[in-house]
Amino acid sequence: MDIKEEAIIKHEEWKGKIEIISKAELGDRHDLSVAYTPGVAAPCMKIHDVPEYAYECTAIGNMVAVVSDGSAVLGLGNIGGLAGLPVMEGKCVLFKRFGGVNAFPIVLSTQDTDEIVRTVKAIAPSFGGINLEDISAPRCFEVEKRLKEELDIPVFHDDQHGTAICVLAALINAAKVTGKKISDMTVCLNGPGAAGNAIIKLLVGYGVKDVIAVDRTGIIYKGREKLDAAKTELAEITNKEGRRGGLKEAIASTDVFVGVSAPGCVTADMIKSMNRDAIVMAMANPTPEIMPDEAIKAGAKVVCTGRSDFANQVNNVLAFPGVFKGALSCRARAINENMKLAAAHAIASLIGDDELKPDYVIPSAFDERVAETVAKAVREQAIKDGLNRI
Amino acid sequence: MDIKEEAIIKHEEWKGKIEIISKAELGDRHDLSVAYTPGVAAPCMKIHDVPEYAYECTAIGNMVAVVSDGSAVLGLGNIGGLAGLPVMEGKCVLFKRFGGVNAFPIVLSTQDTDEIVRTVKAIAPSFGGINLEDISAPRCFEVEKRLKEELDIPVFHDDQHGTAICVLAALINAAKVTGKKISDMTVCLNGPGAAGNAIIKLLVGYGVKDVIAVDRTGIIYKGREKLDAAKTELAEITNKEGRRGGLKEAIASTDVFVGVSAPGCVTADMIKSMNRDAIVMAMANPTPEIMPDEAIKAGAKVVCTGRSDFANQVNNVLAFPGVFKGALSCRARAINENMKLAAAHAIASLIGDDELKPDYVIPSAFDERVAETVAKAVREQAIKDGLNRI
Repeated sequence: MDIKEEAIIKHEEWKGKIEIISKAELGDRHDLSVAYTPGVAAPCMKIHDVPEYAYECTAIGNMVAVVSDGSAVLGLGNIGGLAGLPVMEGKCVLFKRFGGVNAFPIVLSTQDTDEIVRTVKAIAPSFGGINLEDISAPRCFEVEKRLKEELDIPVFHDDQHGTAICVLAALINAAKVTGKKISDMTVCLNGPGAAGNAIIKLLVGYGVKDVIAVDRTGIIYKGREKLDAAKTELAEITNKEGRRGGLKEAIASTDVFVGVSAPGCVTADMIKSMNRDAIVMAMANPTPEIMPDEAIKAGAKVVCTGRSDFANQVNNVLAFPGVFKGALSCRARAINENMKLAAAHAIASLIGDDELKPDYVIPSAFDERVAETVAKAVREQAIKDGLNRI
Repeated sequence: MDIKEEAIIKHEEWKGKIEIISKAELGDRHDLSVAYTPGVAAPCMKIHDVPEYAYECTAIGNMVAVVSDGSAVLGLGNIGGLAGLPVMEGKCVLFKRFGGVNAFPIVLSTQDTDEIVRTVKAIAPSFGGINLEDISAPRCFEVEKRLKEELDIPVFHDDQHGTAICVLAALINAAKVTGKKISDMTVCLNGPGAAGNAIIKLLVGYGVKDVIAVDRTGIIYKGREKLDAAKTELAEITNKEGRRGGLKEAIASTDVFVGVSAPGCVTADMIKSMNRDAIVMAMANPTPEIMPDEAIKAGAKVVCTGRSDFANQVNNVLAFPGVFKGALSCRARAINENMKLAAAHAIASLIGDDELKPDYVIPSAFDERVAETVAKAVREQAIKDGLNRI
């Protein structure tokens, strides 16, 4: 059966992939009086005295909101909050399955930046963390920035940072396979939207030699016309050599190609123009920027895609469940850059040097060690950076 | 053990009375591709074409938000959204236990009417219904009114309407026990706040002869000074005989006393001043307006309270799970007055005429027939009134 057909059948059968269950047994009047009135007044008043106590007696300590306005859902574009709900429920299911984290989908009827910020702030007391999802660039940058400033719980736009963490994890291992140092690498990144932006920042923060970013207009450089705020910022931290031109000029003589762009936009000739033993992360979905076999034939050493049916799948599920699990476990006030780097290292570390090979630089989504390992690293880093509350 | 002590211990053990679980099994890559990408795109695009399809393939058809700003939590007053969370989680647990309805607590960081309305509208696509909870009067009236106007899903302030439904249910049966007609009854209502207001409207709509409403200032009458909008409206539909005075003057020569007011405010002499076979609903919590034995001694025939350790407990859990279950089952656009009346009749009908007696006019919260019977009646009424979508 066709996967879409099967998805429709299963979704109609599930009628919602999530369900809310009670941990309190309500067998008799006494049970009611403990879980509800009059007993419940006691934890309420303790929270009223000490707000932190809410973490001890409610679900917030392990509860994340998956918030979306549906403006950039998967590869489907701006389909709106309601139509994005099956994806958000799916995300919630992944949170639980892989990280043991409770997550609830909040899809919005607004796509206005101010309204989104206001709404998330208004409902924030119900949650221990906010996972922003499928909000289009550049609006997502402002939404996240403002929420991070105004809330003291983790706010994490997974399309950005989850992807960036996985890309860096793969790159750390791919560097070992190719025998190159990351600090010597020049990266060509095609598609500096939500994910691309975060990838660039994480890679630059990690210390790659340079990044050449390309959008629909061409290579981004300082002083290029009509750059928005996000791209102006990118122009400051990328393209040290001042390259000009399009994708062809951008990719030549680089060590790594990262595509979060369009199916089939990379040719074999472009791969050939890269430095030896190129690392290609072609993550357009479902059709990559270049197919793995073609990239390998053209000289690439390591190829990653977003697809589960090829080797080296860059899949956010490697990151977000463990990132939140770790952050929530110490009630971190935020998820900072160090915690993302720690998560990337943790993911990369799961493949031993003796196991590493060109078609195995990133663990499987079903590698049961991942979330726990990531959570532990993120938690330790949060504590090291003083972001923990317990 | 003291109930408060036990509640603290259990709440710390639960660390949240609700939990979110997955209905989709995610055992392998194929499962992932059905529940998440790429398969999930199919239901998303179907919703994008036909928004109603969200009821077929997501959880919204059986998902209620329990929304509170924490401004009037139980008898605790304005403790704020976060401190109210244990109560809201408790409500969610009751929704599931008694009605099979999934409910998620949304506690707000704002108590501003406009902000509450804006926030609930913004998150509404995630839910099939909105249960407003523990929002103080008179703000709750405007919040509910505006949300009812602007959303086409059920919006129901349980403190108001859940209580009103249960009071009417008890009154229908108490009338039988006392051999009086409801259309001949004059009701004294003390405490026309959120619940009191809704009780008055439901009883007037049902056809009681008259209601005399009393607030802290005294009896409400047309033209009384400093009446707010809600009370001005009450003055129009109550006190046909133009009574003046305080509670003492209000309760004299009435058939029914309904108290949603203050512990111990009703004296034996007041009960004695009522008509023969008085019906007393003394619902102040945890201490009623008058204790049942004292009211009986003073001549009352039927006494109801809010307490589970006395006979005739007026408990909202008799109403809201079934009301939402019924409304959701036909995707009702709203919960109207007729549906509330139908719910009250359904609750009352569960006690056969041969079973009725002064200390058994309202079924137990644990009577397993309640929610289903209420749901059926509410659903049928919604369909009769053309509010159903299926």
